[in-house]
Amino acid sequence: MKESVIVVYERPELNDPIFIEGLPGIGLVGKLAAEHLINELKAKKFADLYSPHFLHQVLIKKDSTVDLMKNEFYYWKSPDEEHRDLIIITGDTQVPPTDSYGHFEVVGKMLEFVEQFGTREIITMGGYQVPELQGEPRVLGSVTHLELKEKYKGYDIVFREDEGGAIVGAAGLLLGIGKLKGMKGICLLGESLGYIVDAKAAKAVLNVVAKILNLEIDMTALDERAKETEEILRKVQEMQRAMLEQQIPTVERGEEDRGYI
Amino acid sequence: MKESVIVVYERPELNDPIFIEGLPGIGLVGKLAAEHLINELKAKKFADLYSPHFLHQVLIKKDSTVDLMKNEFYYWKSPDEEHRDLIIITGDTQVPPTDSYGHFEVVGKMLEFVEQFGTREIITMGGYQVPELQGEPRVLGSVTHLELKEKYKGYDIVFREDEGGAIVGAAGLLLGIGKLKGMKGICLLGESLGYIVDAKAAKAVLNVVAKILNLEIDMTALDERAKETEEILRKVQEMQRAMLEQQIPTVERGEEDRGYI
Amino acid sequence: MKESVIVVYERPELNDPIFIEGLPGIGLVGKLAAEHLINELKAKKFADLYSPHFLHQVLIKKDSTVDLMKNEFYYWKSPDEEHRDLIIITGDTQVPPTDSYGHFEVVGKMLEFVEQFGTREIITMGGYQVPELQGEPRVLGSVTHLELKEKYKGYDIVFREDEGGAIVGAAGLLLGIGKLKGMKGICLLGESLGYIVDAKAAKAVLNVVAKILNLEIDMTALDERAKETEEILRKVQEMQRAMLEQQIPTVERGEEDRGYI
Amino acid sequence: MKESVIVVYERPELNDPIFIEGLPGIGLVGKLAAEHLINELKAKKFADLYSPHFLHQVLIKKDSTVDLMKNEFYYWKSPDEEHRDLIIITGDTQVPPTDSYGHFEVVGKMLEFVEQFGTREIITMGGYQVPELQGEPRVLGSVTHLELKEKYKGYDIVFREDEGGAIVGAAGLLLGIGKLKGMKGICLLGESLGYIVDAKAAKAVLNVVAKILNLEIDMTALDERAKETEEILRKVQEMQRAMLEQQIPTVERGEEDRGYI
Repeated sequence: MKESVIVVYERPELNDPIFIEGLPGIGLVGKLAAEHLINELKAKKFADLYSPHFLHQVLIKKDSTVDLMKNEFYYWKSPDEEHRDLIIITGDTQVPPTDSYGHFEVVGKMLEFVEQFGTREIITMGGYQVPELQGEPRVLGSVTHLELKEKYKGYDIVFREDEGGAIVGAAGLLLGIGKLKGMKGICLLGESLGYIVDAKAAKAVLNVVAKILNLEIDMTALDERAKETEEILRKVQEMQRAMLEQQIPTVERGEEDRGYI
Repeated sequence: MKESVIVVYERPELNDPIFIEGLPGIGLVGKLAAEHLINELKAKKFADLYSPHFLHQVLIKKDSTVDLMKNEFYYWKSPDEEHRDLIIITGDTQVPPTDSYGHFEVVGKMLEFVEQFGTREIITMGGYQVPELQGEPRVLGSVTHLELKEKYKGYDIVFREDEGGAIVGAAGLLLGIGKLKGMKGICLLGESLGYIVDAKAAKAVLNVVAKILNLEIDMTALDERAKETEEILRKVQEMQRAMLEQQIPTVERGEEDRGYI
Repeated sequence: MKESVIVVYERPELNDPIFIEGLPGIGLVGKLAAEHLINELKAKKFADLYSPHFLHQVLIKKDSTVDLMKNEFYYWKSPDEEHRDLIIITGDTQVPPTDSYGHFEVVGKMLEFVEQFGTREIITMGGYQVPELQGEPRVLGSVTHLELKEKYKGYDIVFREDEGGAIVGAAGLLLGIGKLKGMKGICLLGESLGYIVDAKAAKAVLNVVAKILNLEIDMTALDERAKETEEILRKVQEMQRAMLEQQIPTVERGEEDRGYI
Repeated sequence: MKESVIVVYERPELNDPIFIEGLPGIGLVGKLAAEHLINELKAKKFADLYSPHFLHQVLIKKDSTVDLMKNEFYYWKSPDEEHRDLIIITGDTQVPPTDSYGHFEVVGKMLEFVEQFGTREIITMGGYQVPELQGEPRVLGSVTHLELKEKYKGYDIVFREDEGGAIVGAAGLLLGIGKLKGMKGICLLGESLGYIVDAKAAKAVLNVVAKILNLEIDMTALDERAKETEEILRKVQEMQRAMLEQQIPTVERGEEDRGYI
C-alpha cells in the first residue's frame, strides 16, 4: 500500500451535500459528535479510507476480529426540502502528528472523494483545550470566507480572533485545502479541559451543528456513548500500563502487541 | 533502491498455499517458530525481499561475507492430500517502528507476491508480552473473519476480546491488508515475558500451528536453536556495550560499524 | 496534496528580475526585511506556494478566517532603467528542520517558478546568531561565484571565511540549487542576538540590499512592524504556555488546537 | 530536487575499473584515505552527486563561496597493464543516520552510475571503533563473496567473524546492493579509537588498498592532511559551542546559520 486508498461500497446520489468531519482529537470531541450524529440520523456507511500514513497496526474488536485502522464515510439523504444532504466522516485515528506530509496526503484524498458527490461546503468539529471552564463550554468558530461569519452570526458561535493561532490536523487542513478547491467551510471547536472523553464539549458543538443544519438531535445517548468510550480507553490504558511497568529494554524488542496508541 | 524488491529464484507451482509469517518481534517468538518449521519440513527457499525501509546496513556472517538485511520466502509442497502447501516467511528484520509508511509498503509487496501463488489464507505468529506467566504460555488468537474463530475453536487458542487492543507490525498488517484483498487469516501470539529469545512461547505457538496444519513437528531442536540464537545476540550486545561505553560524543561521528540493532 | 503547489494569480512580464528571499528564520530577520521591502515598494503579490512539507495546520487571522501556511511571491517592476525588476518571496513558515527532503523539494519548486520569469540572480536574507554584538550588527556575506564578491566589495558586507560553516534552510539552498541551474547569488545575514524579532539586524541587511538595488528605502516603519510582530508572537506564546501548563499527558490527546509553532 | 542527481563533467573510457569508496564516517578514516589516494594519484574529478537526502544546507568555503553538500567521483586511468583503472568517491557527507530510505536511494544512484563505466568490483573504506588499540590498528575485512577472502588472504586483513555484526552506511550498502547487481567487493575498516580525525587508521587501510591495487603510495602528506582537517573541525566545533551556550529556546528560532553537522 503506497498511498491512501478509499474502498467504496455505494455511490449515493447526493444533492449539494455538506461534508462534516469528526475524527479523534482533543477530548475526542469531534469523534463523539460525529458518531452521535451518525447514530441519531441513522446515516449509512458507504466508504472506508485506509492509509499507509496511519499506524502500522490492526485494531482488535470484541469478537476477536481485526481491521486496519480506518476512517469511515457515511451519508444521509434529506427526506425533504428543508434539510441538506450530508456526508459525515469519523474513524479510529488521524495520521500521527510527526507526519505532516501524511496529513496532507490523507486530507487531499478525502476532499477528492467528497468532491465527486458535489460537496462545496465543509463543517469540521473538534475540541479546544482550555485551562478552566467558566460555565458551559463555548464553541469557537473559524471560517474559510468572511461571508460565513456573517451567515452563522446567530448560532452561539464565538468567532476566534487570536491572530497567529492555529488549527492542527484534519479539522484545519480540510478547510485549508478545501479553500484551494473553491470550497467553503467552518471549524467548530468546543472548549474542553482535555479530558480523555468530553461529552459536554461534544454536545455544545453538536448543538451548533444542529442549528446550522436545521435538525433536532436527541442528546440523551451521547452521555452513554461517552461513558462507554471512556471505559474502553481506560481498560486499554490499564493494560498498557501493566505492560510498560514490566518492560525491560532490550535491543531486539519487537512490537507485535501493544495497546491502542 | 527506491522501493522493496523481491528477488525470485524459483516459481514453484503451489496449490492453495497457506502463507505463514514469523519475523523478528517480541521474544523472537515468531522468527523462532518459523525457522523451526522451515527446518523440520526442509522447506525450500525461493525468494528474498530487500527493502529501502530496512536499516541501511549489511549483516556479517561467520564466514566474513555480508548481505543486506532481508526477509526470506520458503515453500513446502505437501506430499499428500491431507496437508496444505505452505509459503513461510522469516528474516533478519522488520521495518523500524518509526516508519509506519515503510511497514505498509513492505507488507503490501509481500502480499502481492504470495497472491501470485494462489494464497488465500494467512497465519501470522509472534509474541504477546505479559508481566508474569501462570503455567504454560497461552496462545492468543485474532482473526480476520468470524468464521475462522469457529473453525479453529478446538485448537487451544484463547481468542482475544480486548477491544481496542492492537497487533503491530507484519503480524497485524498482513491480516489487515490481506483482508482488503479478500484473504482470510489468523494471528497467533504466544505469551512471553519478553526475554530476548523465548523458545517456550515459540513452542506453544508452533503446537497450535501444527494442529491447524495437521502436521507432526518434532520440537527437540527448537530449544537448541533458541540457545544458539540467544548466544549470538548476547555476543552482539556485549560488543555493543563495550563500544558504547567507549564512545565520545563528537559532531562528525560516523556509523560504519555498529552491532545489530 | 502530494507535492508543493504554486497558485499563480498573474504572470507579470519581467526583465531579468532579481529574486529576493526573506522567510522566517533567526530573529525573523529575513522575513522582516522582505516584508518591509514589499511594503515600501508596494510590490504586488502574484503567486502563493503551498506545501505538504509545511506543518499540517491552518493559521487563524484576526477576522476569524483561516488559511494554509504558505509562502508568497511578490513582484516589482522598475519604473526606469536604473533599477532592476524584482521578485520577492516571504511567508508564514519554512519546512521544519527535521525534513531535509522537504526543504529540497520546496526550494526546487521556487526556483523552477522564478526561472519562468527569467531569473538569473538571487539575494537571500537572514540572521546570524552571535553571543554578543559590538556596536551595530554587521552583515555577513557568502556568494555562489567569486566574481560577486568582487562586484559587491564596496557595500559594507563582511565576507565570511569560516570554512566548514553552513547556511541552513532556504537562504542556503536557494543559492546551492540555484547554482546548479546556472544562477548567481549572494546570502546576506545580519548579526543578531537571536531575539524573537530583530528589527536592527533586518535594517542592517536591508541597507545593504538597498545599495545593491540602488534603491532608497525609508526604514521608519520597520521598527513599528517589528513591534507589532513581536506583540503577536508574545500573545501566541502566552496562550501556548497557559495551555501547556494545563496539559495532562494522555494517550489519546489530539491536536486540533495549538499555537503557532 | 526530488531525487539524487549526478552532474557529469566528463565520460572517461575506463577498463573494468574498481570502485573505491571513502565517505565521512568513524574517525573520518574512509574520507581521509580516499582523499589521499586521489591526491597522490592525481585522480581527476568527473562527476558530483547531490541529494535531497543530505542536510538542507550549503557549506561555506574559505573564499566565501558556497556549495550544496555533495559526493564527488574521481577517476584514474592506469598507465600500464599492471594496474587497474579506478573510480574513487569521497565527499562532504553521508545521508543522516535517521534516513535509512535516503541511504538506499543515494547508494543505488551511485551504483547505477559506476555501472555505466563497467564497474564490477568495489572496495569500501572506513573506521571500526574499538575501546583501545593494541599496537598498530588492524584492518578488518568483510567480503561479498567467499572467493575474495581467498584472493586477499595475504594482504594483512583480519577477516571478521563476528556473526550478527553490521556495517552501516555507504561502506556496507555499496557491497550489499552491489552484490544484488552481480558486483563483488570488500569492505576494509581500520581500527580506530573514534577520534575526530584518525590518520593512523587511514594509513593502515590505505596500505592494504595499495597492496590490492599494486600501487606505491607515499603516506607523508596524509598526516598533514589529517592535521588540517582536524583544525578545521575544531574551529567549527568551537564556533558551534560558543553559539550553543548563547542560545535561548524560542518558538520561532530559525536555522539560517549553524556549523557543520
